[in-house]
Amino acid sequence: MATIKDIAKHLGIAVSTVSKGLNGASDISDDMRQLVLDTAVEMGYASKKLKANTTRKVCILIENMDYENIGQFGYEIIMGFKLSAAHRRWEVSVIPSDLNMQTAEKYDTYMLKNGFSGAFLLGFSLHDDWVKQLNKTTVPTVLLDNYIPINPHVGYVGTDSVEGISLAVNHLYLLGHKKIAFLNGSKNSMVSDERYQAFIQSMTEHGLVPEEGLIEYGYYVPDCAKYHVPGFLENGATAILCASDLIASGVIVELTKRGLRVPEDISVIGFDDLPLATQLTPPLTTVRQDRTDLGKSAFLLLDGLIHKVSVSKMLLRAKFIERNSTATVNAVTAKAAKP
Amino acid sequence: MATIKDIAKHLGIAVSTVSKGLNGASDISDDMRQLVLDTAVEMGYASKKLKANTTRKVCILIENMDYENIGQFGYEIIMGFKLSAAHRRWEVSVIPSDLNMQTAEKYDTYMLKNGFSGAFLLGFSLHDDWVKQLNKTTVPTVLLDNYIPINPHVGYVGTDSVEGISLAVNHLYLLGHKKIAFLNGSKNSMVSDERYQAFIQSMTEHGLVPEEGLIEYGYYVPDCAKYHVPGFLENGATAILCASDLIASGVIVELTKRGLRVPEDISVIGFDDLPLATQLTPPLTTVRQDRTDLGKSAFLLLDGLIHKVSVSKMLLRAKFIERNSTATVNAVTAKAAKP
Repeated sequence: MATIKDIAKHLGIAVSTVSKGLNGASDISDDMRQLVLDTAVEMGYASKKLKANTTRKVCILIENMDYENIGQFGYEIIMGFKLSAAHRRWEVSVIPSDLNMQTAEKYDTYMLKNGFSGAFLLGFSLHDDWVKQLNKTTVPTVLLDNYIPINPHVGYVGTDSVEGISLAVNHLYLLGHKKIAFLNGSKNSMVSDERYQAFIQSMTEHGLVPEEGLIEYGYYVPDCAKYHVPGFLENGATAILCASDLIASGVIVELTKRGLRVPEDISVIGFDDLPLATQLTPPLTTVRQDRTDLGKSAFLLLDGLIHKVSVSKMLLRAKFIERNSTATVNAVTAKAAKP
Repeated sequence: MATIKDIAKHLGIAVSTVSKGLNGASDISDDMRQLVLDTAVEMGYASKKLKANTTRKVCILIENMDYENIGQFGYEIIMGFKLSAAHRRWEVSVIPSDLNMQTAEKYDTYMLKNGFSGAFLLGFSLHDDWVKQLNKTTVPTVLLDNYIPINPHVGYVGTDSVEGISLAVNHLYLLGHKKIAFLNGSKNSMVSDERYQAFIQSMTEHGLVPEEGLIEYGYYVPDCAKYHVPGFLENGATAILCASDLIASGVIVELTKRGLRVPEDISVIGFDDLPLATQLTPPLTTVRQDRTDLGKSAFLLLDGLIHKVSVSKMLLRAKFIERNSTATVNAVTAKAAKP
């Protein structure tokens, strides 16, 4: 592995300049510091430096996810992570990320420069520059709901979507529903793919037919419901399974607008069990992701990676929570729904 | 949840007798103690008692797996588990299990009676009585390489077979092999199924044809090689991928007997990276399962379950270890192999 001397030789500059660049001294130019850091990362100095790091600092990088108040998806995840980290006396910085940060410098450089021994990435997509760099990173990194193959420095934490969706479909099946619609989250995400597969599999296992007109992709916002609920109703849905509670809240609004009662006329199931779920009318039947445990597990996984235990995947159980938004299939709705 | 009073009332005996039964006092009959314990488990008293347990005792139950010396598969797993447990000041008992133990009493009763807060099960199969009872257990339990659906008290730890097999197939593909045989482990095990699927998928991704006569199931002992190597050779294999280093050692013996050289005439890959792998002639190219990390992770998972963090699955990275039992495909062998 490269030493400070190697870096100095490679760049044809003094060892003291390299040292200043690595340690954030103020008497060299920003350009020179960046050059030193980038070269250090390329030459494999980064992981060595991180290993020697005694400050015990990790960060949570977050984008495309609300987390600032207790009702939002990311809030308890971050709390859980911080709790576990505090137990082991690690300091956690929460850093909102954006595309500018990602184009400004490489992921490994950013981590080295800021002295972080590892990171937990929340809300990133596979298209993000930094995520693309994770195939080769040597920085211990945990992703929520995204999987990077092969690299032993990267792990993935998530909730078992297959069991979650299957619990929901089974519940609707036992209530007599056959025409079950599925409003999924964003297309091109690993979790949406898994949930789609789980839905198809689970329907098939119950002898139900997953119909094309009853499966759609939306976004994790209530507003997406208005584009898909009309089609579901035309195609005779007696129940709508949603990929998040936020989507489900939008679905209930759309159904109510059309004079349909939940659950008497049509059943609705959410996913996540956000605090919102109990506040809806009617209180939402949903699949719980335990977000505090997701955060705790993410830290345990990261701590493992920092100590060279290469866990690639850690899945938490989904839990089915029955409230009041589901009921026995309505004979009239179901009949009207017949093609 | 049931109290000692409830149990006494249900059985029509004195509270003091129930208390004696639960606490292992010697002045009641064995039959009465068993009745009290079984009733306590049935009435849901077990988990309450376990929660109050302050002795911090867990156990490793083991069967069908060698673990007593450093060359054997279970050895480092148990060491890793004990290391992690000691860190958190838990006491670990290693208990060889057998069918008699399992028919003598229920799993939950056994755990309650012995004051264990949780268990790590090694080498059990889905047919074992105690494993069948895991669907409903409330005792925190971790299984190596076996998955129990839904129950939040049970988790699974293992190595990512899909990546492991795919690394091995990719290596052989790059060496020019097309006729790759796969000698899998025992049929009817989750891991064998996963590896079979991974083999098919990986071959197909490389544009290779997985052939029926080149895929067989054996057992995790060298001896099983003799039943399958002849068929592989008849069907033109230029490389044999094995589900364990022990199987691979048997395969090398069979090939050598027939005057074939490894790797000049035919390549062989193992799985596990046991100490044995470096001692074979030639030293074995293999897929490493880090058994110490498996043990450490199993304890972390169990500790999580005991603290109500419902992790269902924890997978470790497989690591490809290139030694000397693989080489570029031999043109002569490959030609002779042509149908």
